[in-house]
Amino acid sequence: MVPMNLLRGKASADYLNTGEWSKKAIKEAKKFGAVNVVATSEDKNFSYAPPQDAWKLDPNAAYVHYTPNETIGGVEIFWTPETGDVPLVADMSSNILSRPIDVSKFGVIYAGAQKNIGPAGVTVVIVRDDLIGQVVPGTPTMMDYKTHGDNESMYNTPPTYGIYIAGLVFKLLKAKGGLAAMEQTNITKANLLYDYLDATSFFNSPVARENRSRMNIPFTLKDAALDEEFLKGCKARGLVQLKGHRSVGGMRASIYNAMPVEGVRQLVEYMKEFEAKHG
Amino acid sequence: MVPMNLLRGKASADYLNTGEWSKKAIKEAKKFGAVNVVATSEDKNFSYAPPQDAWKLDPNAAYVHYTPNETIGGVEIFWTPETGDVPLVADMSSNILSRPIDVSKFGVIYAGAQKNIGPAGVTVVIVRDDLIGQVVPGTPTMMDYKTHGDNESMYNTPPTYGIYIAGLVFKLLKAKGGLAAMEQTNITKANLLYDYLDATSFFNSPVARENRSRMNIPFTLKDAALDEEFLKGCKARGLVQLKGHRSVGGMRASIYNAMPVEGVRQLVEYMKEFEAKHG
Repeated sequence: MVPMNLLRGKASADYLNTGEWSKKAIKEAKKFGAVNVVATSEDKNFSYAPPQDAWKLDPNAAYVHYTPNETIGGVEIFWTPETGDVPLVADMSSNILSRPIDVSKFGVIYAGAQKNIGPAGVTVVIVRDDLIGQVVPGTPTMMDYKTHGDNESMYNTPPTYGIYIAGLVFKLLKAKGGLAAMEQTNITKANLLYDYLDATSFFNSPVARENRSRMNIPFTLKDAALDEEFLKGCKARGLVQLKGHRSVGGMRASIYNAMPVEGVRQLVEYMKEFEAKHG
Repeated sequence: MVPMNLLRGKASADYLNTGEWSKKAIKEAKKFGAVNVVATSEDKNFSYAPPQDAWKLDPNAAYVHYTPNETIGGVEIFWTPETGDVPLVADMSSNILSRPIDVSKFGVIYAGAQKNIGPAGVTVVIVRDDLIGQVVPGTPTMMDYKTHGDNESMYNTPPTYGIYIAGLVFKLLKAKGGLAAMEQTNITKANLLYDYLDATSFFNSPVARENRSRMNIPFTLKDAALDEEFLKGCKARGLVQLKGHRSVGGMRASIYNAMPVEGVRQLVEYMKEFEAKHG
């Protein structure tokens, strides 16, 4: 929906490429116009995010799109890019609600609900008013932000159950101290795992230190032949969904808001035991 | 999605116009190509469906689209149109699962889940294999039937909760005797209300007898000044959502699969009492 709504007669859009979700967004955007990749981390298997001063921004771009957290690579960008008058667009599917965000710096934020918001099947879109209402000709009614804006997101019958649960999640997060409190909890959780990964050579984190995601933490065993045994032991303790994406291999701990500190602590305990046995 | 996927290089598509949902479909199709309205019942305020012999079919049409049950007008088509080699497309949102359907007669059947299938936020699409894979250039990936067909409807993270509940509904319907049994129950429910509407002159059904919907039954009071009092009395007995759509006025009883026979019986009882008091 982003290119259909935001190209607004312009010839091209800027995209940062930091991994799988960036690539999907770029591929989709090419259906509607030219794409200028402002920077890419493909040279190092998407293990870092190019810093702002390495971005080649086009001042005439329709918008600048980036993915502040790449779920597969575990690469997160903690600073907000400066794009001048060009609207900034972020796919925040996997890190929204994990920490406070200054929404006013963005033209569009979009996020699938299924990580930190609620059940799969809801997508949250936050659009700056002046970017609404200039779709590419031939855009289906349901893909036009204006359709949803003009009808309080109820032009169609919306996914009511998912929206209801999302509302309960928002209330819960507020009751827990809001996003500032969630950020502290998420830092605590991530540090538990990263501190151990830094202290051992039995496991390894492939991600550049400044881009270590607080939501998705990929790691590898020094000896990949032990992967299966490690996963089996995890499962026996109720530690599941730890196999890394097939495109990167190894392990990946996804520790979204719903994962308690205790869950990460148990994983680290098991990793230590596994190392003691096999290291 | 229908025109984007089914135009396949053809100049125009055929549409039957039997009410509000037909009109929305026609408006959307015009974004992508020419529309030939094969017949319309607008002359009588969409209170009937034009019979097949009144349809002016275009043999070169990309497809023929119709809405077998118009929820607002309460107009249902119980026969399956004959369209020769031109694929037949049906928006079955409000009557799917209400009776057996010969799926092989259709090119595409689509239906929002929120009436007879399950929670809002799921759409069921049944597409004939040979109609997949010929989208209009510039179609978003998510709007291409092939994307969903090739990925077992899991290219994106699907609305898992809604799909799970839909599965439970399918099992329940099978356990109740399947769609043949549902049809009998739905006939019983609809007849309870229509028989009374035929027997009284205090209330009136605006819909042609052969197109009386089994799902949505609009009716009016002879004296519209009594509408509010009637609705108030309904609400006091737990009979709700009976106010007709603002475009047609009056009342509308939506008696989808989930409405038990007893619910319709109670409505008719109250209507009789109301007539006895005010008639």
